[in-house]
Amino acid sequence: MSIRKLILVTNDDGLNAKGITSLVRAVEPLGDVVIVAPTESQSGMSQAITVKHPLRAKKIQLNGSASYAVNGTPTDCVKLAINQLLPRKPDLLVSGINHGSNSSTSILYSGTMGAALEGCINGVPSIGFSLISLDPHADFNVAEKYVRRIASKVLQEGLPRSTCLNINIPVAEESELKGIKICRQTMGFWQEEFDKRTDPAGREYFWLKGEYYNTEPDAQDTDEWALKNNYIAIVPVNIDLTCYDTLNNMKNWKF
Amino acid sequence: MSIRKLILVTNDDGLNAKGITSLVRAVEPLGDVVIVAPTESQSGMSQAITVKHPLRAKKIQLNGSASYAVNGTPTDCVKLAINQLLPRKPDLLVSGINHGSNSSTSILYSGTMGAALEGCINGVPSIGFSLISLDPHADFNVAEKYVRRIASKVLQEGLPRSTCLNINIPVAEESELKGIKICRQTMGFWQEEFDKRTDPAGREYFWLKGEYYNTEPDAQDTDEWALKNNYIAIVPVNIDLTCYDTLNNMKNWKF
Repeated sequence: MSIRKLILVTNDDGLNAKGITSLVRAVEPLGDVVIVAPTESQSGMSQAITVKHPLRAKKIQLNGSASYAVNGTPTDCVKLAINQLLPRKPDLLVSGINHGSNSSTSILYSGTMGAALEGCINGVPSIGFSLISLDPHADFNVAEKYVRRIASKVLQEGLPRSTCLNINIPVAEESELKGIKICRQTMGFWQEEFDKRTDPAGREYFWLKGEYYNTEPDAQDTDEWALKNNYIAIVPVNIDLTCYDTLNNMKNWKF
Repeated sequence: MSIRKLILVTNDDGLNAKGITSLVRAVEPLGDVVIVAPTESQSGMSQAITVKHPLRAKKIQLNGSASYAVNGTPTDCVKLAINQLLPRKPDLLVSGINHGSNSSTSILYSGTMGAALEGCINGVPSIGFSLISLDPHADFNVAEKYVRRIASKVLQEGLPRSTCLNINIPVAEESELKGIKICRQTMGFWQEEFDKRTDPAGREYFWLKGEYYNTEPDAQDTDEWALKNNYIAIVPVNIDLTCYDTLNNMKNWKF
């Protein structure tokens, strides 16, 4: 008798986001689902952990799956799930479906991917999913089909010990999508055009608002290129950040 | 006439930490220093950005250097510095000196290294420094000398476009230190032994408290080994997280 797979679902938009409901629906046929996700939105929280205040996990029912609402970051949710809430280490972690892109260097700020990196550190095959739309009412139907197909494949194949997946999905009709493309992370950055304002007391304050700048728009092996051309972009992501080329070059430095 | 170097100093322990005072003292002889750092401790904030509330930058005097206290994360500080507060893009970013280790996979949770990664994304040669002591009154004298030597070298040599440095320094007498070692990131993880408590109302809560587990304690090319053997450990860090081996293998996957 084969044991059913245990699947941990989390996100960074919080338990009330539409995206996590879609994600649960996508993976439910693949195993037993437990949801451990932030009570409130944790966008832009990267792989932050909570050290200043204690965490609470409130058990709730969400679409029939066992669910916990946590007053912390996505990474806190994963740590708490693996160490306290789940009966055993999960066979798969899925995070998302994020409302908005986490392609290119945005992966570094992403709470969605923070959770996936945390799963990976703990030896759990982990995937972050994002839909390229900030609309809270976005249509996740097409995305759901791809999520199920990819999650099912990862359950079959596994992932190397230090690798997780960053998956971005364009908003398009199913007939317009060209399929799945394995990509590298695009090099680019956010040109931060802070919105400088003055409060009623005459003091300056700044809202963060940036515009993404792609430094290699013509590189066809990148996730940005894939998304622009209606492919689902999969970037395999390494938790070993060492730059081995520089490591070798720096051995000649005389300090 | 050569233009003086512009050096951005930040940290994650906040402007009142001893470590940032040491860092300023270490790099002051190398150029013009501007400090843009969090008002309060931001430990464990990774590369998080603040999207829910606006930022304020309060100009203050700290040891004679131009300083700004920011109500945000280390990454917010770097973004605000580069885009709003500094007269031009800095020639060097230094972050720290952190009170406590950021070696191995701890780099992923580190606010100190979040700031360095952000500088790197923006094309600024960037270094995060950490002293392996959580003591707020730790002795940074020996560390300071190495910080100056390494920062000076990086100003001379520069760093490749997508690489920053993660530098950890053991607590030891100068005579005990064996020098500088260029290393790779140790693979390991935190075994999270949450401290489960009950509040006066009878509700459970959890404090995060982990113990680091090194999965390759005998690997002499790792930062953990170097630190245990009284070397200053330098890990060159890549902002391209793509796992190229997996990328090539996954091209054969049939979805």
